[in-house]
Amino acid sequence: MNPAPLSGLYAPSLALVTDLYQLTMAYGYWQQGMQDRQAVFHLYFRRAPFQGGYAVAAGLALAVNWLENFRFSAEDLDYLAGLRGSKGTPLFPREFLDYLRDLKFTCDIDAIAEGTVVFGNEPLIRVQGPLLQAQLLETALLTLVNFQTLIATKAARIREAAGPTDQVLEFGLRRAQGFDGGLGASRAAYLGGVDATSNVLAGQRYGIPVRGTHAHSWVQAFGDEEKAFAAYAQAFPDDSVFLVDTYDTLEGVRHAISVARRMRADGHELGGIRLDSGDLAYLSREARALLDEAGFPNTRIVASNDLEENLILSLKSQGARIDTWGVGTQLVTAYNQAALGGVYKLAALRKADDSDWDFTLKLSEQLVKTSIPGILQVRRYLTEYGKPRADMLYNTAEPLPENLTLVDPADYTRRRAVRPEAQYKELLEPIFRNGRRVLELPTLPESRAHAQREVQSLDPSIRRFLNPHTYPVGLELTLHDYRDQLILEKRPLRPA
Amino acid sequence: MNPAPLSGLYAPSLALVTDLYQLTMAYGYWQQGMQDRQAVFHLYFRRAPFQGGYAVAAGLALAVNWLENFRFSAEDLDYLAGLRGSKGTPLFPREFLDYLRDLKFTCDIDAIAEGTVVFGNEPLIRVQGPLLQAQLLETALLTLVNFQTLIATKAARIREAAGPTDQVLEFGLRRAQGFDGGLGASRAAYLGGVDATSNVLAGQRYGIPVRGTHAHSWVQAFGDEEKAFAAYAQAFPDDSVFLVDTYDTLEGVRHAISVARRMRADGHELGGIRLDSGDLAYLSREARALLDEAGFPNTRIVASNDLEENLILSLKSQGARIDTWGVGTQLVTAYNQAALGGVYKLAALRKADDSDWDFTLKLSEQLVKTSIPGILQVRRYLTEYGKPRADMLYNTAEPLPENLTLVDPADYTRRRAVRPEAQYKELLEPIFRNGRRVLELPTLPESRAHAQREVQSLDPSIRRFLNPHTYPVGLELTLHDYRDQLILEKRPLRPA
Repeated sequence: MNPAPLSGLYAPSLALVTDLYQLTMAYGYWQQGMQDRQAVFHLYFRRAPFQGGYAVAAGLALAVNWLENFRFSAEDLDYLAGLRGSKGTPLFPREFLDYLRDLKFTCDIDAIAEGTVVFGNEPLIRVQGPLLQAQLLETALLTLVNFQTLIATKAARIREAAGPTDQVLEFGLRRAQGFDGGLGASRAAYLGGVDATSNVLAGQRYGIPVRGTHAHSWVQAFGDEEKAFAAYAQAFPDDSVFLVDTYDTLEGVRHAISVARRMRADGHELGGIRLDSGDLAYLSREARALLDEAGFPNTRIVASNDLEENLILSLKSQGARIDTWGVGTQLVTAYNQAALGGVYKLAALRKADDSDWDFTLKLSEQLVKTSIPGILQVRRYLTEYGKPRADMLYNTAEPLPENLTLVDPADYTRRRAVRPEAQYKELLEPIFRNGRRVLELPTLPESRAHAQREVQSLDPSIRRFLNPHTYPVGLELTLHDYRDQLILEKRPLRPA
Repeated sequence: MNPAPLSGLYAPSLALVTDLYQLTMAYGYWQQGMQDRQAVFHLYFRRAPFQGGYAVAAGLALAVNWLENFRFSAEDLDYLAGLRGSKGTPLFPREFLDYLRDLKFTCDIDAIAEGTVVFGNEPLIRVQGPLLQAQLLETALLTLVNFQTLIATKAARIREAAGPTDQVLEFGLRRAQGFDGGLGASRAAYLGGVDATSNVLAGQRYGIPVRGTHAHSWVQAFGDEEKAFAAYAQAFPDDSVFLVDTYDTLEGVRHAISVARRMRADGHELGGIRLDSGDLAYLSREARALLDEAGFPNTRIVASNDLEENLILSLKSQGARIDTWGVGTQLVTAYNQAALGGVYKLAALRKADDSDWDFTLKLSEQLVKTSIPGILQVRRYLTEYGKPRADMLYNTAEPLPENLTLVDPADYTRRRAVRPEAQYKELLEPIFRNGRRVLELPTLPESRAHAQREVQSLDPSIRRFLNPHTYPVGLELTLHDYRDQLILEKRPLRPA
């Protein structure tokens, strides 16, 4: 047993974090002798979450960790050997399980760095490798990248609402979707822009700054607010924030001031007070006035209570005097959209005789849900100041024409010509080659700093919450035309 | 290192799955010499989720597992020793960390069995023990019970919509909130009433039946639907469900029938077809007609695509011919309400001289959010047929009067007299005494069977989704009166 840190928790093997159909398909491919056909899959989402204009890519480091530890343990194989079909016979023959036992991860993986702003239809991860292996990676990659990207994006929006100087603290563990839901949310929230977390395990495993003071129960245990605050100040004379709403908020502020005066007489300053209920706009203004009058203009006001980006904007517009935002449930569960609908689609497969690629797609009744064939790269064109101007998806397996045209995948009549001199960068970077990692990943603070630069590089019209401007993402014209041709070939011509 | 199975994943210690403030309060209590004062906390939610009439209690077995492994490892304490306050000095003194190192879990815990139907304000878990310990348990207990109860309840609603004979499969791992979010959701969904999961790890760790067939990529890899179906049938001749919507759904059904005929000639029957997009009411009726005409009346129709209880009811009312429901995102994230707002409140504390209990509460601007003091038990009165009639919360630390009256906590003028001969059961059962487990927990299938009986025991008016009838939960009159008195004492009389 060689425990692998995965999403921060430990397990002897996590190869079974998958849907059964990945394993039944794997057996089918193996039986057909197709297991080693080279295949290309793209992991992407169709629309940015929260009706927003962008997402912040996240989850790659967790995915890399999972991939580096990808193997079937004896315990996993014993379980699979025990599965039975409807006739009571083993679902998988022993020869296939032996094949899984010896399976080594040998794929090539390219991905967009964590913290990069991304848009619908852009592959965040491209997997190229033996069909059976590439298929087996689907579920775990989706689980990790969907959730991390969702929460990092939510955090970036909350940071946007709070502004660059206010503090934002993540307090959500008790409402998270399981221990690892909380741990993963703390990681993604930090990456997306919050300053600290209450989650101690996230502090230990990921080095995220931890923060926290006391609960209502602390005040209840003393019965008397002043006594409770004084006792807390005794324990943490330079790190106290008093929760003032156990009985009555403004009375609580007066009790906090009374204790703060005694602290000051001993050479210590009260760090802040926290409001956790009631009308935060009104109470924060009143509390600020009481604190200022009493000579505590630097005592911070922390607020919490189901906060999210729109409520923070609203409180600011009402003149709330809050300088630290404690955000919990709404952030760690992405409450108003609790899942990102990322998908993982087969886009290319070598022909049986290995002579060339077949590019493949999955149709849908809606054109925007039809997948994009090819071995894709995302090219980001930049303004002269280095800001994102437009993104182009193109098939790296075909030569690019000299004059490049971008076609809007949602409206093929909207096109943009690329200026030949336009600066660009390619977003998908090599992460694994033949199963070996070829890139040292950035640290979490580095990815966080990258995310902040990335979000700031977007035009405010794309960052706004209500009806954001659509950032242009186009298919390169020859890719668009090829896809159209494939769709028309695959779609039956129905009688009118 | 002694790995403990926790939420199905493994970790050397999960004592740090907590909010920092639990540890800062613990230090404060220790410094004040209050660490061993006996305290009572209740874990409860205020309103059933999904605007529903009930919840299905879940998470206890995971909580017990966590509690039985509760200890601070050397690694945990090293991390805590490294934390610094704002002045750069250690947040916690070494003596306190030594105290944590030697801390043994010695609480008494009573809880309501998993699968039991529960209502707002009812303690699902009651913790009695040394103040410091009982406080330290808060976050982990909330995380586990909130999420498990949320998902079990969602699953029970989906089971209610699907009816007792349709199959319900949980397919949500790829959209879950992390690996353990997926694993925990699979467990709670099974407990709440689904039949099987696609999540292989959940199958291995919890013994839940696993199901699954193939993805669109399988069809794409063959290019031709009939070839793809035939190859799949070769791998699983008695366990095939063909996904028919990769290119065109009804064409897909025809291809499935063609392969099903060849399978039958070889002595095998096609298990089912799966619809994953489009108008499921229309397509399922058309597919049923095609299958029936072709002589396959027993081939099942599996449907999936963002299904939840209201959509299932709607499809049934439209005459959809679906007999197996694949439910993913909406179930595993409880998409329309992604968190249960359970809380953990201090309700009683021994006086400093240990002469008696002080019963405590936390006020709120809203009466329904004010906590309930006492050492509570939940007594469920039953009809003569053994069905739930009304629940009474009462303080076990005070004698009960001879004539019992229940007071609605949301409207103190609504009262019910308890008939003296009424049958009842007490819902909170002893789980731990002095830190030792005193009850053998039921197995997961036993809890699942219990949940199904429990939900069925409720009147349909309480189970319905739209404006359900409110099940009566009352405070026993002397408890109600005592609470009122405490509130009036604690709440300042403001000038009008």
